[in-house]
Amino acid sequence: MDQSVIGLDVFFLLVGAILVFSMHGGFAFLELGTVRSKNQVNAMVKIIVDFAFSTLAYFFVGYWIAYGVSFFAGAAELSGAAGGFAPQGLSLVKFFFLATFAAAVPAIISGGIAERAKFWPQVATAALIVGLIYPLSEGIVWNGNYGIQAWLKSALGAPFHDFAGSIVVHAAGGGLALAAVLMLGARTGRYGPHGRPFLPSSIPWLGLGTWMLCIGWFGFNVMSAQSTAAVSGLVALNSLLAMAGGIVAAAIAGKADPGFVHNGALAGLVAVCAGSDVMHPLGALVVGAVAGVIFVRGFSFTQERLKIDDVLGVWPLHGLCGLWGGVAAGIFGLTQLGGMGGVSPLVQIIGSVSVAAYAFLAGLALYALGRRFVGIRLSDEQQRRGADLAIHSIGAMPEEF
Amino acid sequence: MDQSVIGLDVFFLLVGAILVFSMHGGFAFLELGTVRSKNQVNAMVKIIVDFAFSTLAYFFVGYWIAYGVSFFAGAAELSGAAGGFAPQGLSLVKFFFLATFAAAVPAIISGGIAERAKFWPQVATAALIVGLIYPLSEGIVWNGNYGIQAWLKSALGAPFHDFAGSIVVHAAGGGLALAAVLMLGARTGRYGPHGRPFLPSSIPWLGLGTWMLCIGWFGFNVMSAQSTAAVSGLVALNSLLAMAGGIVAAAIAGKADPGFVHNGALAGLVAVCAGSDVMHPLGALVVGAVAGVIFVRGFSFTQERLKIDDVLGVWPLHGLCGLWGGVAAGIFGLTQLGGMGGVSPLVQIIGSVSVAAYAFLAGLALYALGRRFVGIRLSDEQQRRGADLAIHSIGAMPEEF
Amino acid sequence: MDQSVIGLDVFFLLVGAILVFSMHGGFAFLELGTVRSKNQVNAMVKIIVDFAFSTLAYFFVGYWIAYGVSFFAGAAELSGAAGGFAPQGLSLVKFFFLATFAAAVPAIISGGIAERAKFWPQVATAALIVGLIYPLSEGIVWNGNYGIQAWLKSALGAPFHDFAGSIVVHAAGGGLALAAVLMLGARTGRYGPHGRPFLPSSIPWLGLGTWMLCIGWFGFNVMSAQSTAAVSGLVALNSLLAMAGGIVAAAIAGKADPGFVHNGALAGLVAVCAGSDVMHPLGALVVGAVAGVIFVRGFSFTQERLKIDDVLGVWPLHGLCGLWGGVAAGIFGLTQLGGMGGVSPLVQIIGSVSVAAYAFLAGLALYALGRRFVGIRLSDEQQRRGADLAIHSIGAMPEEF
Repeated sequence: MDQSVIGLDVFFLLVGAILVFSMHGGFAFLELGTVRSKNQVNAMVKIIVDFAFSTLAYFFVGYWIAYGVSFFAGAAELSGAAGGFAPQGLSLVKFFFLATFAAAVPAIISGGIAERAKFWPQVATAALIVGLIYPLSEGIVWNGNYGIQAWLKSALGAPFHDFAGSIVVHAAGGGLALAAVLMLGARTGRYGPHGRPFLPSSIPWLGLGTWMLCIGWFGFNVMSAQSTAAVSGLVALNSLLAMAGGIVAAAIAGKADPGFVHNGALAGLVAVCAGSDVMHPLGALVVGAVAGVIFVRGFSFTQERLKIDDVLGVWPLHGLCGLWGGVAAGIFGLTQLGGMGGVSPLVQIIGSVSVAAYAFLAGLALYALGRRFVGIRLSDEQQRRGADLAIHSIGAMPEEF
Repeated sequence: MDQSVIGLDVFFLLVGAILVFSMHGGFAFLELGTVRSKNQVNAMVKIIVDFAFSTLAYFFVGYWIAYGVSFFAGAAELSGAAGGFAPQGLSLVKFFFLATFAAAVPAIISGGIAERAKFWPQVATAALIVGLIYPLSEGIVWNGNYGIQAWLKSALGAPFHDFAGSIVVHAAGGGLALAAVLMLGARTGRYGPHGRPFLPSSIPWLGLGTWMLCIGWFGFNVMSAQSTAAVSGLVALNSLLAMAGGIVAAAIAGKADPGFVHNGALAGLVAVCAGSDVMHPLGALVVGAVAGVIFVRGFSFTQERLKIDDVLGVWPLHGLCGLWGGVAAGIFGLTQLGGMGGVSPLVQIIGSVSVAAYAFLAGLALYALGRRFVGIRLSDEQQRRGADLAIHSIGAMPEEF
Repeated sequence: MDQSVIGLDVFFLLVGAILVFSMHGGFAFLELGTVRSKNQVNAMVKIIVDFAFSTLAYFFVGYWIAYGVSFFAGAAELSGAAGGFAPQGLSLVKFFFLATFAAAVPAIISGGIAERAKFWPQVATAALIVGLIYPLSEGIVWNGNYGIQAWLKSALGAPFHDFAGSIVVHAAGGGLALAAVLMLGARTGRYGPHGRPFLPSSIPWLGLGTWMLCIGWFGFNVMSAQSTAAVSGLVALNSLLAMAGGIVAAAIAGKADPGFVHNGALAGLVAVCAGSDVMHPLGALVVGAVAGVIFVRGFSFTQERLKIDDVLGVWPLHGLCGLWGGVAAGIFGLTQLGGMGGVSPLVQIIGSVSVAAYAFLAGLALYALGRRFVGIRLSDEQQRRGADLAIHSIGAMPEEF
């Protein structure tokens, strides 16, 4: 019986890991559909190769930084058969689950810098981010490293609350992506005297990517409880309502544009991560709806007014909606607004801004170094040919040529 | 340990909810692949926006009508942390699970009225159906509202049996869709002196939609047990065999046509819902095979002989195969045919026809009102341009234009 | 409580079955994307119809050969409600789970013989393989039929170890596919004086198929434990690392070619099946990386040097990487290499080669008979038109014609 209970947690976390893993397919197809046809193959290859290198970086370094666990024991000890680690390999599935979160950060960045990034430098950067930059803030927020959470609790009454990663994953990913986009510069031909908007290649693939992300997201949020005994149906319902709110708001604010509607679902889900375990469902609905509007307005503002060539709008989607989610957990988590309490608006603002700023600054430094010493940008000619032929020597529909 | 047991049910229902949620992606891509290219974006946007409005309508009204539960308590009470509702938010996940069923009804209708329905009136109709029309029959069949099930049992020896919704979801959805199709009229150019069949745009997307539906369907059927203690492997096996029967029969009757083969899988799954918990696997195989033939014959008959422009064939698929499933539960559920017993053929016929007729009549009234007071049909010119450009101002492959 | 524990196992195996079932969608789209446009519909229809016939063949014959269970009892007995079989239908879900494995064999073959096989003969062959050929080796390896495993253990110190089917499913499928490819001959125009390589039609669909396979594969491997009490996080982690190793190695060896990168993920997963429960994660990483290189080199060697027209490269992918996986379980499973022990390199070599040889020879006999008495190859003219129009009377994008 005990083995069934432990096995149940292994099963529970495994399903979460599989769901979040499937989101990476979603990242690939969302990017594939949003970029121009000549960059579709590149979108797919970047995501899956980034995922593989991210997994290895997190395995060898990152997980150890965040949680102090290293994987150099024997298999018997790792799986608990010899008394080491958690029994039945529970800690190994926990690693799998968290690795799929970590790898989401390069996947987010990938969408921002699409169509003009060199391939292997991007892969190397992914490994550095997942191995070194991400685990530091992850460990501070989720594992209490360096006592910062304890200090916030004693000084300001509550630790920083980020249940499923509005800040740790999304705002951090958005901040890193913004830095990368600024360092890479806009795609050739996008702005300037002859600049023009680049249209997406395929709404069906964009939509499929979104569906895969939405479906997997319920694992992202609900399985963040990390054990069956701690699972909460409230997290599931709040995720559902925030997603619905994001869709509805983006459909109205975005005039039923398919890109806005589908990304609106994601906006709601990004924003609900942090407080999904403490907000009232009606609060989650509002949080998601606001996020939908943030994305629609933020996307146009970033690309058209600020002339920042963030191709998929990952800064508004993950950065701004993530920040909103971190702060919103401190508002709608309050008991006065029907929430479960235990959160502080001030702590949420401090924590949210700190992590996003850390990620942005770390990203600036990393990509500045990459630009200076390695070269991270495809040439104008390579961009004209398209990343598919320039990097991968094959287009998305090879038979047609 | 108790928390693990409750958590297990939360987990179980959550996986069911995620699977049925993923079916909505399937509805989107099945419709996208079946309509003409100029209506692909519209198919996708309709499904996801319908889903969002359906969720809200069911949250605020529908679930309360069917199960008497309202969600205006505080988060602590909702999630059971303060002693209210089921512990660990079990009732909230149950809501999620059943909301994905409810939202399937507008998704079914969407496929029937594709290519010519106005957008916002369709969304409003979806909300009305999920908030008011669907929950009434759902509550009667599944929650025993109004004592009709008790009366059937005392008067005719058995309550109406519809384990996973052949009737409550599919025949009702099919009946509503048939009414909507009749009220909207055929697509411009489909029939009449210069009328011609409209070919599907993409078999790969049609197939992907089908696969997503088939995969999610195992959650639809098996998780209808709603608790791990009540789960039955028989439901899973019967679903598998009915699906296989539908594929085989449709492949033979439909001469290996890809539309028939893929929809044949769905036909088998529609028909097996009602009796999957009481039929012998061989009975399920027969039920699915018959459904496959019903779809192939019914599709051509509806579109070509009756000249009813049901684009995806949702009346034969969900309506006729659903009705067959409701009746078949009363036949193949009998112990004489290897079933588990406890069903009555007469009650199954009465219940099946009643719910389908109720849905059809309610649909006629609703869409007649919509046609009279709002306008629900795209103009000929809008249909000629395509719903994508007319409604969403963008085509499925924007870069190509 | 007991019912929850049994229900938990039903749930656990069901999730595994659903995941492996979803892999069949992956097989369909991987083949669809790799073949030429005029054969896309055929790829999809073959996979789903093969799946249906395979399920029936395994239900009526195959499962009985492998495990001695027949399904002709009544539903009450089957589901355990009347005391027969496992309670709550556990044995029925086990059938479902194992049926999705069995049906993978024809799906593997389908990719090798794509673009030139007659439809109904292929379907009949699938049924014969799943009903008769596959269950014999399956029963020997996994159910100890005929005492061969017991004899290996007593004679050589360890039974043949194939946890999740590197050999039973993949090497056997690859061996059968190689025989089928040889018996069918190359596609018209592929080799010879005017021969030329045929390019894939769609990298996005190829990639989607791969993602569906990778996602489902975690059910293939982890749920092979067949009970929650026996589940091991080590299997999940090893699968993850082998996949990552396969991607990284194929990306480097294959120069970031999208076909190699995506198939590299699958190569790692094929190879890790056998020893995923006994290897150290670092061993799994090496096994996956080697498999990635085997696929890249083996694919070109098979198609270009040996002039064997294995369209998707299923012999290198499932055959060679499967064989490597079977042998690797005997190497990296050793305690000296950090593994859990209990394996013998010699036994692994004997078992792996025996099963692959059996499958290859059985395939030669079966397809030779088919070629002699039925005819299994499309005519040159049918191939020129494409299997879609020749067999299914419709193309993948019907509206365009």
